[in-house]
Amino acid sequence: MENDSTIRRLKTVEGHLRGVIRMVEEDVYCIDIIRQIQAVEAALNKVSAQILEGHLNSCVTTAIQGNDPKERTRVLKEITEVFEMSTKV
Amino acid sequence: MENDSTIRRLKTVEGHLRGVIRMVEEDVYCIDIIRQIQAVEAALNKVSAQILEGHLNSCVTTAIQGNDPKERTRVLKEITEVFEMSTKV
Amino acid sequence: MENDSTIRRLKTVEGHLRGVIRMVEEDVYCIDIIRQIQAVEAALNKVSAQILEGHLNSCVTTAIQGNDPKERTRVLKEITEVFEMSTKV
Amino acid sequence: MENDSTIRRLKTVEGHLRGVIRMVEEDVYCIDIIRQIQAVEAALNKVSAQILEGHLNSCVTTAIQGNDPKERTRVLKEITEVFEMSTKV
Repeated sequence: MENDSTIRRLKTVEGHLRGVIRMVEEDVYCIDIIRQIQAVEAALNKVSAQILEGHLNSCVTTAIQGNDPKERTRVLKEITEVFEMSTKV
Repeated sequence: MENDSTIRRLKTVEGHLRGVIRMVEEDVYCIDIIRQIQAVEAALNKVSAQILEGHLNSCVTTAIQGNDPKERTRVLKEITEVFEMSTKV
Repeated sequence: MENDSTIRRLKTVEGHLRGVIRMVEEDVYCIDIIRQIQAVEAALNKVSAQILEGHLNSCVTTAIQGNDPKERTRVLKEITEVFEMSTKV
Repeated sequence: MENDSTIRRLKTVEGHLRGVIRMVEEDVYCIDIIRQIQAVEAALNKVSAQILEGHLNSCVTTAIQGNDPKERTRVLKEITEVFEMSTKV
């Protein structure tokens, strides 16, 4: 299942994030903590891309092949929106 | 024309970038230059989103409604790729 | 304590991330999940900025006021490195 | 001169950007244009990092070694600000 793989990845990220919290608690060197936070973000970006890929191959494809022009417009607009937001986080 | 609007925006960005070069030549305060470079990047992100929107509504829609499954896969894969790259620049 | 505030924020992010995992488990609409992941990343960016601020006001200030030129070079190089990485995640 | 190297790099980016404008004028495939815009942004990120490095080694070092606590606070605050903004563009 695609969801299973996404959940597995997100749980790994959660473990990584808990490791970052421990680093702060143990007063690890700030720069090393920032680098780990950046690694967490890079991992989250990969999960987002995986979810988007699944979405394009399911909902988006169905909507575009369907007969509802409003729905088509809606799903395509959402893709542009998350793309635009992805450049901001 | 959609292209005209994109070209106009990109030429504005080009003018902005030339302004940044002048700032460096005139030895303007570094942080102000960095901020202007960030503004140029934000403008480029908007142009990318505009181009993506046009692409989704033309090529991608055509491919998904078409009969070539390989072509469908290809256009959707590209969307995921530029999305993933957008988180890295 | 500065660390306490950082830990509190990171635990909030951890809770947010667990919420995202639940969303995937409950098969929530993909785009809504991606948006929540982006919100998690935005929150992490703020934590990183907070940690960097503390680091600049402590270690970096001490190193620059100190007598070890190698150490000065090292701490400043690290700032540039995390800045450069921040544009990639 | 450090500025010369920055100007040279920015002029290269300007040439790259003009190439992107030509691509749009010649109706090149949208995804290839988006990729080139992302390459322009990656190049701008490198220039920003180079400028920041110079700034840290000059103005910031001078301010931190100086006797004006307000000025120290100001320059360090700016670093955090451009770092935070860099995660948004």
